[in-house]
Amino acid sequence: MKVKGIHYRSLWWDRTAQVLCIIDQRALPHVFRVQPVATLDDFVQAICQMRVRGAPLIGATAAYGLALAMRLDSSNEALERAHTMLNETRPTAVNLRWALERCRSALQPLPPGGRAAAALNLAHEIADEDVAINRRIGEHGAALIRDIASRKPPGMPVNLLTHCNAGWLATVDWGTATSPIYQAHDAGVPVHVWVDETRPRNQGALTAWELGSHGIPHTYVADNAGGHLMQHGQVDMVITGTDRTTRTGDVCNKIGTYLKALAAHDNGVPFFVALPSPTIDWTMGDGVGGIEIEERGGEEVTHVQGRAGDGAVATVQVTPDGTTVANPAFDVTPGRLVTGLITERGICAATEAGLAALFPERAAA
Amino acid sequence: MKVKGIHYRSLWWDRTAQVLCIIDQRALPHVFRVQPVATLDDFVQAICQMRVRGAPLIGATAAYGLALAMRLDSSNEALERAHTMLNETRPTAVNLRWALERCRSALQPLPPGGRAAAALNLAHEIADEDVAINRRIGEHGAALIRDIASRKPPGMPVNLLTHCNAGWLATVDWGTATSPIYQAHDAGVPVHVWVDETRPRNQGALTAWELGSHGIPHTYVADNAGGHLMQHGQVDMVITGTDRTTRTGDVCNKIGTYLKALAAHDNGVPFFVALPSPTIDWTMGDGVGGIEIEERGGEEVTHVQGRAGDGAVATVQVTPDGTTVANPAFDVTPGRLVTGLITERGICAATEAGLAALFPERAAA
Repeated sequence: MKVKGIHYRSLWWDRTAQVLCIIDQRALPHVFRVQPVATLDDFVQAICQMRVRGAPLIGATAAYGLALAMRLDSSNEALERAHTMLNETRPTAVNLRWALERCRSALQPLPPGGRAAAALNLAHEIADEDVAINRRIGEHGAALIRDIASRKPPGMPVNLLTHCNAGWLATVDWGTATSPIYQAHDAGVPVHVWVDETRPRNQGALTAWELGSHGIPHTYVADNAGGHLMQHGQVDMVITGTDRTTRTGDVCNKIGTYLKALAAHDNGVPFFVALPSPTIDWTMGDGVGGIEIEERGGEEVTHVQGRAGDGAVATVQVTPDGTTVANPAFDVTPGRLVTGLITERGICAATEAGLAALFPERAAA
Repeated sequence: MKVKGIHYRSLWWDRTAQVLCIIDQRALPHVFRVQPVATLDDFVQAICQMRVRGAPLIGATAAYGLALAMRLDSSNEALERAHTMLNETRPTAVNLRWALERCRSALQPLPPGGRAAAALNLAHEIADEDVAINRRIGEHGAALIRDIASRKPPGMPVNLLTHCNAGWLATVDWGTATSPIYQAHDAGVPVHVWVDETRPRNQGALTAWELGSHGIPHTYVADNAGGHLMQHGQVDMVITGTDRTTRTGDVCNKIGTYLKALAAHDNGVPFFVALPSPTIDWTMGDGVGGIEIEERGGEEVTHVQGRAGDGAVATVQVTPDGTTVANPAFDVTPGRLVTGLITERGICAATEAGLAALFPERAAA
């Protein structure tokens, strides 16, 4: 999407320098810093330090990392070593393993001399596929936004609310939850986005930066505000991403998503979840009972990072010394609270039947 | 309540120095700083700068301010002037006006020579009344906690969740929502409190400081976490305060309270609201439609205060420059989501009939 009028992906291949370029997301929203990544160690550090983040983006980055490792040494041993090092950067990201497995199984049968070029093509393919999937999610979702707009007085914006950053920064381009918003906006449908702060990591600041950079009107709010906004008719539709979706339509997403779904349900506001089909866990039935929720470090809650008065990025401690903290990173929204799932194949009910109708080949497996 | 083993009120009269002592709440939770307040200007500044905060505490502070002003000059003109200056410190706090009106109407008929002593006695009376009301709220609420404890295995703590700071720092002592918790704990009932961070002003840090200082086990969580905790049986009861309660039982409290009430309702968790009866607005029927919600400054959301690495209190900006913010300070929880109201007269349903039965003299008015 656009930053200061220029179209960017969250990563791109620099054909001249023969390096991958990434946006250092640790510096956002305060500084837009592009960094070259060239060596295997660079890639491992970029993922570990969360300079790149978001499951689809991590997967694509790792594919490029493998490709660049193959240029220096394309032996079987080097392939295994690069696979292992990249795989261990973020043990919980499903897309990371999926992308690395796909690369390894494609490269293993090839003669070492052909691996470097093939690996780079495969990385391009994985990145482009991610863009294509998210573009299709956006087309389906934008139709929902256009439909709401058609029932409003001309020129009145459709008010959307989103939680966390399921934006282009978390994917290669478009984002998942944001893709319908970008596409509706680019097509001339007036939109306005309520951006949840998304404590404790404040990913709402990334979403605000994205939307602002692309020129989409938005308003940043504390996570606590959404229910009040919905009570007062200020939200036409909620749209979020998801990290894992059960075959029954339960949605595991950033902590606090469930509270927004409850408020949407209580106020008759449509609540949609945008997802690439690889995030569907076909083995899982009951999301609340079955999905283990990652407990993250307490310092994410007790400390807040931002820009200090002198312009430097600084961290402050909000709580009393020694405060005990719990920090569950995700929660599960039962499918009964979800109006629909927006996938690359179309929109379906958040039910076993709904998902099976769109993905019959997976549901039958 | 206790701080480092010593019992404190949030304000107290120093008979030796003949000044009011307050706790500078701007410095909490990082520094416990007691300050004398002696002149009318001191009092005005203390309230304006939110060194004291919380409606009941502001009311009592203002009463002392009027009393100390009367010592210097007890003329009719001085009484009016002190009343006006104190009344204008926080225009929206109901208790402030209530306390000042009560003082003025009691002092006006007196000869100027008798006003200073009478005003000081009245300030003591207002402070003591607040303590007594909150103690009674605590007695009624503690019975609910004991009841839950009796249905758990011996020694297992009752898990309570609270939002914002309806603690002793917001009143003269005990607090409203915290009073049942303190009394249950002091009576030996094992309790554990989930403390909502309460963005954007992070009053949860005050609650954590209070509970920690009094020795009550607690865990600080992002506001987003409560729904997940309730889904997993980790909350036995939610208890909050309220800034205004309609005669029909709708509760206007800190933004985000409504989301917790929805989650409690969805998971069968009792949701109680503790309130001194002066917060009931007998003229108001429909809370969602009728109560105007204060919109506060955006910098409360975009900037976060805490302790920097060097120990100094500092502020950081979380959002991109120029981000548009909405900051509604309160929301309304419909009575249908409230299990019961805990008042100084006992507990009632959050309905017109429930409140009328407890306060027949007001309901009939």
